[in-house]
Parts: sequence; C-alpha cells; structure tokens
Amino acid sequence: MSITLERVRAMDAADPLRHLHDRFLLPDNIIYLDGNSLGVLPAGTLRKQQDMVLNQWGHSLIRSWNDHGWIDAPQRIGAKIAPLIGARPHEVIVTDSVTVNLFKLITAAAALSPDRPVLLSEAGNFHTDLHVASGAVDAVPGMRLEVVPRDAVEDAIGPQTNLLLLTHVHYKSAARFDMAGITARAREAGARTIWDLSHSAGAVPLHLGRDGAELAVGCGYKYLNGGPGAPAFLYVAEHLQEALTPLLRGWMGHATPFAFSDDYVPAPGIARFLAGTPPMLSMAALECGIESFNGAPMEALWAKSVALFDLFAALIDERCSGHALDCISPPDPDLRGSHISYRHPHAFALCQALIADGVIGDFRAPDVVRFGITPLYLGYEDIWNAVERLARILETGFWRDPRFAVRGKVT
Amino acid sequence: MSITLERVRAMDAADPLRHLHDRFLLPDNIIYLDGNSLGVLPAGTLRKQQDMVLNQWGHSLIRSWNDHGWIDAPQRIGAKIAPLIGARPHEVIVTDSVTVNLFKLITAAAALSPDRPVLLSEAGNFHTDLHVASGAVDAVPGMRLEVVPRDAVEDAIGPQTNLLLLTHVHYKSAARFDMAGITARAREAGARTIWDLSHSAGAVPLHLGRDGAELAVGCGYKYLNGGPGAPAFLYVAEHLQEALTPLLRGWMGHATPFAFSDDYVPAPGIARFLAGTPPMLSMAALECGIESFNGAPMEALWAKSVALFDLFAALIDERCSGHALDCISPPDPDLRGSHISYRHPHAFALCQALIADGVIGDFRAPDVVRFGITPLYLGYEDIWNAVERLARILETGFWRDPRFAVRGKVT
Repeated sequence: MSITLERVRAMDAADPLRHLHDRFLLPDNIIYLDGNSLGVLPAGTLRKQQDMVLNQWGHSLIRSWNDHGWIDAPQRIGAKIAPLIGARPHEVIVTDSVTVNLFKLITAAAALSPDRPVLLSEAGNFHTDLHVASGAVDAVPGMRLEVVPRDAVEDAIGPQTNLLLLTHVHYKSAARFDMAGITARAREAGARTIWDLSHSAGAVPLHLGRDGAELAVGCGYKYLNGGPGAPAFLYVAEHLQEALTPLLRGWMGHATPFAFSDDYVPAPGIARFLAGTPPMLSMAALECGIESFNGAPMEALWAKSVALFDLFAALIDERCSGHALDCISPPDPDLRGSHISYRHPHAFALCQALIADGVIGDFRAPDVVRFGITPLYLGYEDIWNAVERLARILETGFWRDPRFAVRGKVT
Repeated sequence: MSITLERVRAMDAADPLRHLHDRFLLPDNIIYLDGNSLGVLPAGTLRKQQDMVLNQWGHSLIRSWNDHGWIDAPQRIGAKIAPLIGARPHEVIVTDSVTVNLFKLITAAAALSPDRPVLLSEAGNFHTDLHVASGAVDAVPGMRLEVVPRDAVEDAIGPQTNLLLLTHVHYKSAARFDMAGITARAREAGARTIWDLSHSAGAVPLHLGRDGAELAVGCGYKYLNGGPGAPAFLYVAEHLQEALTPLLRGWMGHATPFAFSDDYVPAPGIARFLAGTPPMLSMAALECGIESFNGAPMEALWAKSVALFDLFAALIDERCSGHALDCISPPDPDLRGSHISYRHPHAFALCQALIADGVIGDFRAPDVVRFGITPLYLGYEDIWNAVERLARILETGFWRDPRFAVRGKVT
C-alpha cells in the first residue's frame, strides 16, 4: 500500500512539535536537508546580534565583559548545552573549535597513562579528527596513532591503548556507536574514550553521565543552530577535571586571569580548557541556537526524527527504485543518528540538481548524498516534497545537465 | 607656557585625519581611551552583521561557503591585514586566537632546530604568551622555557636558544622592542623570533618583511576594531612556510579538505595554519574593522598618535603634578607603542572613578592606569577633556568613593 500525501499531511497535523517550526527563519521555496553542516537561523538571533553589536559592543564597549556577562559566556552557554547531552552544567564549556578542543583533550588525557602508547581511532572517521590526532600524538612522548576499520575497533582495544577517539554518529553513514558499551569495554581494558558528538548533539538523545562518558567534544553550527563556524563545546566528567592539565594553555583558562601573573596555574574545573579570548559575536549566536531547544525534550525530537527518517526511506523505496540509490544508513533507529545517506554513482551531480530544484542536501566525497533530518523545523510534507523532487530529477535525467558537474571550493 | 584649549582646538582643525572619526559609532558622552582591549564599533559593521545573519546565513545557508566567499575569508582578511604590518598578502592568515596561534608557531618552528632546547621570553610578557609557551615546550621533546627580565633578553640569546618569543609593544608600559635589531641579533645566534603584535598592529607602523621578521601573531579586537574576541592573525614569512608542519592540525589546513581523506597533507603555504571551521560572524566583523583603515596610511596615523600622546603627557604634567602619577611609557616615540600608562598607588579606584566620569581607560594589575591613543577616532580635544576630568578627580579626591573599590570579574 503506497503512502499518500493525505496520510503525510495527517502526520503533520498530529505532530506535537509542529509549533517549533516558527522559531526559525527558513528561506522561501527551499527544503533544507543539509545534514547537517549548517543549521538554520533561529528567529531570535537577528535581534540578539543587533543588540550585541550596537548596544553591548558599540555602546557599552569594554564594560560588557562584566556588565553583559561576556566573561561567563563559555560556562553559561556550556551549562545550557549540558541537558541536551546528559551532562551536568559544570561539565561542559564552550570554546574554540572541535579540532582545537580535540587537541586539548587528547594531549591532556594521554598524559594520565604514560605507559600506554596508542591513540586508537576509526578509518574513515571525520578527517579533521584524524588530522588533529596525527599531530597530537607527536606532542606526547612515545605516543602513536592507530587507525583501524570500523568493525575492528572494539577488538583493537588492548593493554597498549591509551585513548580511543570515536565519532558517536558517523558524518557520512549516520551509523551510531553504542556509547555505554564501548566506553565500558575501553575502561575494562584501562583505556579512556573521547567522543566526538558533532553529529549527535541536538540530534539524538545523549546521556553522557549515565553512559559513563568521560571526555567529549561537539560542534555548535550543526544541530545546535549556532551559525556558521559557531564555537564548539568540550565536556570533561567532573571526576577527571582536576586530574587533567591542558598542554594548550591560555589566560582565559588561568586560575586568576586578571592577576597577570607569569606562572601558569590552571583554573579550577572545566574552565582550565579555555585558552584565548572567545569570539563573542559568534558565541552570542550559539547561545540563541541552543535556546531554540527550550521546552522541546530530546526524546520527543528523536521520536519525530525516527518517523521523518522512516518516511523518507519508505518514500524513496516507493518512488525511486531502479535508480541506483543505495541507502548506507542503518534501518534500526538505535544504531543511527539523524541523517540519511545514499550512495549513487553520480552523487555530486544529483546533489547539485537537487539544490537547483530547491532541496538542499550535501554531497560527501566520493559518492554519497546526505540528507539531514532536523525535527525542530522539518515537517512530514517537507519529506514528501523532497522525495517528489528527487524522483522527478531521476526520472527526467535533469541531473545530467552539464552545469551540475561544476564544483565549487566547498563540495 | 601652558597649553590652552584654543591651541588644542587648532590642532583638531588642522588634523588631516579628522574625517576618519565619522567611520565609527562612538558612544555619547564617553571618551574612549581603552588601551586597547576592545576597539570601537565601525559604522559599517552593524549593516554587515545584518547581511551576514539574515542573508548569508538565513537565506543562502550552506551555499554561502561558496557563494559569499566564506571559505576564502581567512586568506582574504589576512591579505587585508598584510599592508598594515608590512607583509605580503599570502604571508598572513586569520584564524583562531593569539593563544592558539602562538601554540601553532612555537611547536612548528621549534621542530626546525631540534638541537636547541630553549624557548626564551620576557618576564612580565603578556601572561597568555607565557602560559601557552609553558605548555608548548612540553609538546616538543627536550624543550624548556626560559623567562628573563626585559633588559636581560638580548644577552640571554645564545647557542641554546631555539626561539625568542617577544611582544613587540608591551601591554602595560607600551615599551617597544627594536624588531629589526633583535630579529637580526637572534638570527646571528641561530635562533628565530616570534613577534606578538597584539598592541602593535594598527597602532604603530610595522615592516615585517623589511625588518626580517619570520613569525608573528596578532590580535583582531584591539586596534583593528574587529569586535569582542575577534579572531587573530598569524604571519609566516614566505620562505619559511613550506618548512613548517603544524602540530595542531585540522581539515581547514589540509591540502584537500573536501576530499575527506584520512591522511594529513598540509595545504600549500600559509593555509596549513588553519585548523577548524572559522567563526564567520566574528570573521565578518573583523573584516569591517580592517576596512576602517582604508586610505589612512599607517605613517600618518602614527604621526597623529605621537602628537596625541605628547599632548596627553604634557597636559598631565601641567594639570596633575603632585598627585603621584608616574608615567611608565617611553618619552621617545621610537621606543613606544600607542598607549600611555601611569603608575598610581590607587590605580584601580582612579580608573573606576574615571569610568564613572565618562573616561574609559583600563586598570592593569597591580598599580597601572593605561590609556589607549587611537588616532583613527580620537581628537586632540578628547585628550584635553580626559585630562581635565582626571585632574578634577585627583583634586577633589572623587576616586576615594568606596564604590570605586568594588572589583568585577574583569578588572
């Protein structure tokens, strides 16, 4: 029995989260399924930026560090992320980028077990994680990076393993690791795990505390809707915070930054992982992005994500069969994140044709089209319309137009 | 013969840079002599931020990485900073913070001379430089940090010296090092110098190429008017770029960031010093800040800075003698930057009283009041009025009011 538009509209009508859509400024005539390299603009962000620029910077100037709480922003925004990832408020801080934060955590945590020389990660992990890991191991005496295929990761954990660096939800396939199981497996072997939550935070329910996670980083510009290149977050479980001494140090992470003392003394707790002065305009936008989750429980969002994903997959099966689209994302919701990806021999051109037709997904080299499922602002009819357009593009061969072969710098 | 208000107004009337004042939105009834922890708001920044948020992010979304040149912003903005510091466009890039950039340069450059174990710096250097240095040396096998008094720095350069880390203009005293002389002295001894230009860029004429500087970092939120916590810049002379391999690595510094390859291959040239995704809202504000220098030659700005400083010092001598103000900034313009600092036994309360009276300088622990001299938007009569208010505060003892003893988190 095929899915009807009527049935899809009934799903929207029954959606208890439908009103959240109004919290965002969405572009006209676009179905935004970017998955998810840049979240959409929350409606409150424009006014907040105007206040930041004109009043807080322009008028109050340097006084805003105290008067408008700039100096506490890394902790304050971190505490707002905490409930989205199942952490306690003082275990999360906003600072720098995912890359820089991974460097901080790898180098600080590796030093706790100087007799264990291996940083273990997954081949095909998001590449910045592997790049930063390749340098970070050179900063720790005797350390080396071992990269093994995904299905060999668990067996590779052993007495040499110092740190395990994994991305919780894979950027390409959306395959999700079992955080509790793997963290426990590593801990039994005497190793610690660093989780990259870039495709998880704000997308799937996370319970870092309950699942025993000790170290994590994540992205502000994807599902948290913090704006282009928004600062990242860093998580350290309370019991580890005082044991870690950052190798990458700066005045904002000093115990007394305004005493201007030559000697480095780490700040108590998570604040020691701050380094330089935070980019406040971008920080303010991130804070607005996180506030767009207010009153929307992650469990409810996740239930809707699952339903949107399943609808997408079912519609593709019905409407696009015979067009060489091969789903690489797990059918089991417990094993996946909040995006759905397909292999296609002409994935790049297909993605460009979709964009030209108002459906924004992303191409991921060499042959994947990825669609983000963001329950905060997507409806079921959006999914219907996206698949309709994709089916038409495939049926008509629209994607063969030569203009869709031209690549920009960011593809 | 005392200086008259008439004479000061004549200086404003004859000022060829007076029109630059209109490029900025200055708060009413405030004389802004912050020196210079946060530059003022350029008039064009508000509109640019609105365009960034509403159009580039909100409307164009992920497409803006190509369509609005986000992906090239680190290089493009770096190239705009280059003429302000006497560098070539491809030698400067905007990324991360001063702290993180120092870590990148120290760790990458130290590896070039593995037989030289010493990173040499100045006691009382801006503290984040010493904090980051203390960690960076631990990331390089055998390396150690040596910190010596300012007047002992040159003599301490020797065969053990790998890197010399100096701040060109001292954040507190404004004392300026001889860039050409010290860089040459270090090079003769086989050492390289990293210059922190945080209090120099946009403040004093810089000729990095001419003066033989090879490595430098600098701040975007001070004299470049890039907004609170604006991203920083990093300079590497062309001849060194390919020799340096960053220890802190990320996808934006990869040769092919969108090939998503596991292996790290540094980008050609300066781009290898990028790491994570840049915070675009803050990047855009920095670009506006730098554009506020358009058509204003650094030499003309510097001549005005010298005249403003000399007027300030002369008026203090005339109006505030006998009040224990002790100027710690060099009288010789060639030996200083663009701020003037005074020791005073009650510097904190004095600074707070000045702020309450509409003159914003900064307190620098333990006993310094610092006044920034920013020729882009300050006039001679501003200096007159600031000193008048300071004289009145000293004469009346207004600063003794108990409310001026209360410290905020940022002091």
